[in-house]
Amino acid sequence: MSHIPPSLEKIIEKLSKFPGIGKKTAQRLGLYILKASSDEIYSLAQSLCDVKDKIKKCEICHNISETSPCGICADPRRDNKILCIIEDSSDILLLEKTGYNGHYHVLDGVISPLDGIEPEDIHLDDLLEKSDNYAELIIATNAGIEGDTTSLYIQKLLSEKNVNISRLARGIPVGGNLEYVDEATLTRAINDRVEFND
Amino acid sequence: MSHIPPSLEKIIEKLSKFPGIGKKTAQRLGLYILKASSDEIYSLAQSLCDVKDKIKKCEICHNISETSPCGICADPRRDNKILCIIEDSSDILLLEKTGYNGHYHVLDGVISPLDGIEPEDIHLDDLLEKSDNYAELIIATNAGIEGDTTSLYIQKLLSEKNVNISRLARGIPVGGNLEYVDEATLTRAINDRVEFND
Repeated sequence: MSHIPPSLEKIIEKLSKFPGIGKKTAQRLGLYILKASSDEIYSLAQSLCDVKDKIKKCEICHNISETSPCGICADPRRDNKILCIIEDSSDILLLEKTGYNGHYHVLDGVISPLDGIEPEDIHLDDLLEKSDNYAELIIATNAGIEGDTTSLYIQKLLSEKNVNISRLARGIPVGGNLEYVDEATLTRAINDRVEFND
Repeated sequence: MSHIPPSLEKIIEKLSKFPGIGKKTAQRLGLYILKASSDEIYSLAQSLCDVKDKIKKCEICHNISETSPCGICADPRRDNKILCIIEDSSDILLLEKTGYNGHYHVLDGVISPLDGIEPEDIHLDDLLEKSDNYAELIIATNAGIEGDTTSLYIQKLLSEKNVNISRLARGIPVGGNLEYVDEATLTRAINDRVEFND
């Protein structure tokens, strides 16, 4: 690889650090960059800087946004009685597809003592404050150990408050085959069974 | 996707135009960019511009390089009696691994009338000039129709010159199984059979 120009080698090395991009892919991308028009690449570089320069966090929900408050917090058509608590801004993209129309609160992490992430490291302080304004809180952390720990912690934190707290249902995925569902999920699906007239 | 900040959406859109990167991958890369440090992203943007600003073509062999003549053309240790004619600069990376130690001539394309690429659109004019300086020319275009057309054209172009012209051998790949070799390749392998004492 000694005959690759240094600047090309550098961009290949940087691209290969991206998630899911190996050495070969980075090399292909590097050659694409080489062949693309200068305008296209300058504009890509500008867009990269824009992401860093323009995007900040919404001061109400901690969602990523170019404005604060963000588009969701500022939208008067959304149901302002329901708040969904999530780990990461990217979860909003997924939940928006479900038709959910309430507000969000981004924790920006989960409690994980092994990784040194304590309750004070995620956005819990203002959650306690603002929880009074809502009729229902939905905890939508991931279903792993850290997510569950965080969920439990929030439940205890807010237990004094006069607010309904729920969490996402667990069970068999829609279209799922019992054979491929793990034991823990199946156990939960039996315990949380729902009456037909629901 | 209406709740993605415009600058993030823009970078995702741009990344998804790269070869082999789809919408989902671009989204994952976008989120990675969002989370990466500003320094890292600014430096990536700078590297992108560097590729465009610093890399030019070697005026002797048309290889991409930050200097002209390029490192290979300027290297006195290389065999200056042998010239390998290739379609694209990236082929150099592959041929360097074989231990080839001569010079290169990059055509920057192949003759392809269907795509509107005529002989005058690739670097053939100076090839004719400089061919007198070499004892052997190896034509190493790809083995497809366009590559073969170009190879034949070069052969005719240089037929008057006092220079040996060869092309890459074709046959069964090393480690290859006859069962998986196509007919045309096998036919070529029989016709071009090599005596054992060679």
